[in-house]
Amino acid sequence: MNTDHTPRRLWRNVRLATMSGPGWGLIEDGALLAEGERIAWLGRQADLPAALQVDEEYDLQGALLTPGLIDGHTHLVYGGHRADEAEQRLNGASYEAIARAGGGIRATVAATRAASEKSLLAQALRRARALMRSGVTTVEIKSGYGLSLADEARCLRVARRLGQTLGIGVQVTCLAAHAVPAEFHGRADDYIDAVCAWLPEWHAQGLVDAVDAFCEHIGFTPAQTRRVFETAQRLGLPVKLHAEQLSDQGGAALAASFGALSCDHLEHLSPAGVAAMQAAGTVAMLLPGAFYMLRETQLPPIAALREAGVPMAIATDHNPGTSPALSLPLMAHMACSFFRLTPLEAVRGITVHAARALGLRDRGTLAVGQRADLAAWNLQHPNELTYWFGHDACQGVVVGGRRMTSEAPA
Amino acid sequence: MNTDHTPRRLWRNVRLATMSGPGWGLIEDGALLAEGERIAWLGRQADLPAALQVDEEYDLQGALLTPGLIDGHTHLVYGGHRADEAEQRLNGASYEAIARAGGGIRATVAATRAASEKSLLAQALRRARALMRSGVTTVEIKSGYGLSLADEARCLRVARRLGQTLGIGVQVTCLAAHAVPAEFHGRADDYIDAVCAWLPEWHAQGLVDAVDAFCEHIGFTPAQTRRVFETAQRLGLPVKLHAEQLSDQGGAALAASFGALSCDHLEHLSPAGVAAMQAAGTVAMLLPGAFYMLRETQLPPIAALREAGVPMAIATDHNPGTSPALSLPLMAHMACSFFRLTPLEAVRGITVHAARALGLRDRGTLAVGQRADLAAWNLQHPNELTYWFGHDACQGVVVGGRRMTSEAPA
Ligand SMILES: [Zn+2]
Ligand SMILES: [Zn+2]
Repeated sequence: MNTDHTPRRLWRNVRLATMSGPGWGLIEDGALLAEGERIAWLGRQADLPAALQVDEEYDLQGALLTPGLIDGHTHLVYGGHRADEAEQRLNGASYEAIARAGGGIRATVAATRAASEKSLLAQALRRARALMRSGVTTVEIKSGYGLSLADEARCLRVARRLGQTLGIGVQVTCLAAHAVPAEFHGRADDYIDAVCAWLPEWHAQGLVDAVDAFCEHIGFTPAQTRRVFETAQRLGLPVKLHAEQLSDQGGAALAASFGALSCDHLEHLSPAGVAAMQAAGTVAMLLPGAFYMLRETQLPPIAALREAGVPMAIATDHNPGTSPALSLPLMAHMACSFFRLTPLEAVRGITVHAARALGLRDRGTLAVGQRADLAAWNLQHPNELTYWFGHDACQGVVVGGRRMTSEAPA
Repeated sequence: MNTDHTPRRLWRNVRLATMSGPGWGLIEDGALLAEGERIAWLGRQADLPAALQVDEEYDLQGALLTPGLIDGHTHLVYGGHRADEAEQRLNGASYEAIARAGGGIRATVAATRAASEKSLLAQALRRARALMRSGVTTVEIKSGYGLSLADEARCLRVARRLGQTLGIGVQVTCLAAHAVPAEFHGRADDYIDAVCAWLPEWHAQGLVDAVDAFCEHIGFTPAQTRRVFETAQRLGLPVKLHAEQLSDQGGAALAASFGALSCDHLEHLSPAGVAAMQAAGTVAMLLPGAFYMLRETQLPPIAALREAGVPMAIATDHNPGTSPALSLPLMAHMACSFFRLTPLEAVRGITVHAARALGLRDRGTLAVGQRADLAAWNLQHPNELTYWFGHDACQGVVVGGRRMTSEAPA
């Protein structure tokens, strides 16, 4: 193949769900052509341009083809896991007893700090490959278990390297304002000072695409969150927020006032928060995996968000404490079951609205000029993504026009 | 290989979770030897008999090896699916409106009756292969969407053939008393008469391992259920029951009085029902997939069952209406999250207690003399089965000493 030549790849005999309009955007007996990383043509197979020259052609035998899925909120980089702790809790141990024994987020911070960059990458790769097998082609990854200048940087680098290793899209978010580390115990404001001092350094190293914080009575106050956001704003970095998960802190309105990409969780979001998000064009990122694991009963205000036209996205929130989830379609399923999203809303939530939540306009739909990020499914209709559950019907993903494998090298 | 020779297969370098005692039965650095269909030896690799002759040897590189999982309650054989109906419901259509339009179980009965035996088998095979990929080596399959002499028989035959095709264990349950078919509308007692007349015929054809009924205010009365059970008893067939899912009908006590293998669902089980099950040695079959899909809030009385020492099993209840679930480990995960089972209880629920619920004493644990039904996992500890969720960590299954593939033939 000539190096000047942009490879043309054609997928034939597919049912397309383009997700590019208000509905599913179904095209029966379809085909999709990529030139390099981009979609060059899509439509009914019968309408393919005559005498089309392609380098590679794939007959998908009637498979469903959707945009590659986008997981817009994960904490994928961490050392160890907390299965033992989960077992202890189910055996009756209290959160307090586990925390006294060094468990909870402190255990993950300790394991993350103790792990080498290589080990952190290897662990995160396993989880990312499972997400890919569920159809994911772009993933957001937050730091937040390092909580020091060097340890957060290591996690941010691992997130970057993960994208390079797998060839999938990775958006890296700095969540240094996740928790107060032990060395700053009782000095949350001092820790926020430190984070604001570290951020420019991480940013200068090209490690940060966005900035997040955990605004909660057990996290950081709105005033502390504001200081982090002001630093991000000075650096020209977009912000997002873990907001109103356990209580209404007014975090969503604060984030919206900074033009936040998304506010995430939102079980306790107020009408004022909905209005602020609507006015700012902020996406509501729903995280049903944590809702499920925490046996939450307070539902996010879906009807109000829908009424206001706030776009709703859905993510795994993959993390070792409250959501060790490894399938994005299952999260869409849970968003239907728990939150009563419609199947169309749920699938938009893991494609077009998830792209918007990451500030990415070049993916999440199938249309000419968009990235050729695709997921092929052993399904007839995309509403089956929120019907069957527990298995992965994904037959494979294409990222930037190239078929990707989720298999680990031998 | 000499035909007189029983093949010996060895799996080395495994962590065994035998599930054969009150705990996990962990054996580190283990090995397991099968002679033909049975386990001939297991223990620490270092203790392997010297000069052991084996025909095949597999190095599992540290994988976790558990008993093959047992899905003790499914409705796997049916025509069509109901994803469109699920979408309509999430878009606000009432159950009544869907029923008026011919939806609900009537739609599945119509599609099942219209489908050929070949088509029913092909559809059920896809679902069974998904369950196998989740670690399942034995599955119970109920009829119940045919509801006529010929159509029920076709479904029972498909269930039998599925086991032969895949080489996995299949226990076939007659659930003709699932719903009153249209041709018996308003004549439930007449339909029960018919079922009691048909049962000996199906039994004579070798199609029935057990008999089940749906005892509920929207199903059959306890008196009707009793007549079905009396017929089963005369035929020497064990019984089980869909009991106390939506209301307390006293079904569990009735079933226990017939020595039922299991009572299933049980959200509305009374203390008297618990006591009757305990006295009869009946297994409580928990079905968290339906609990999840129906957004049920009434929990089965786990503490009372635990206190009484009633064994608890967990199944997918795979069916097209209330539980299109295709992963048994996810059901164990949901049993922990929704019902607060401990991870050990949950994994016993999909192994040893599930075997008991099917009246099978030769599987569900790893021990000498038991069937060599195995599942290999890319996990370190079995408590991870109820920690990570949404992906299938199963690397493959062995049934009766032979490696099985869940791949469909090309
Ligand atoms: Zn999070
Ligand atoms: Zn059932």
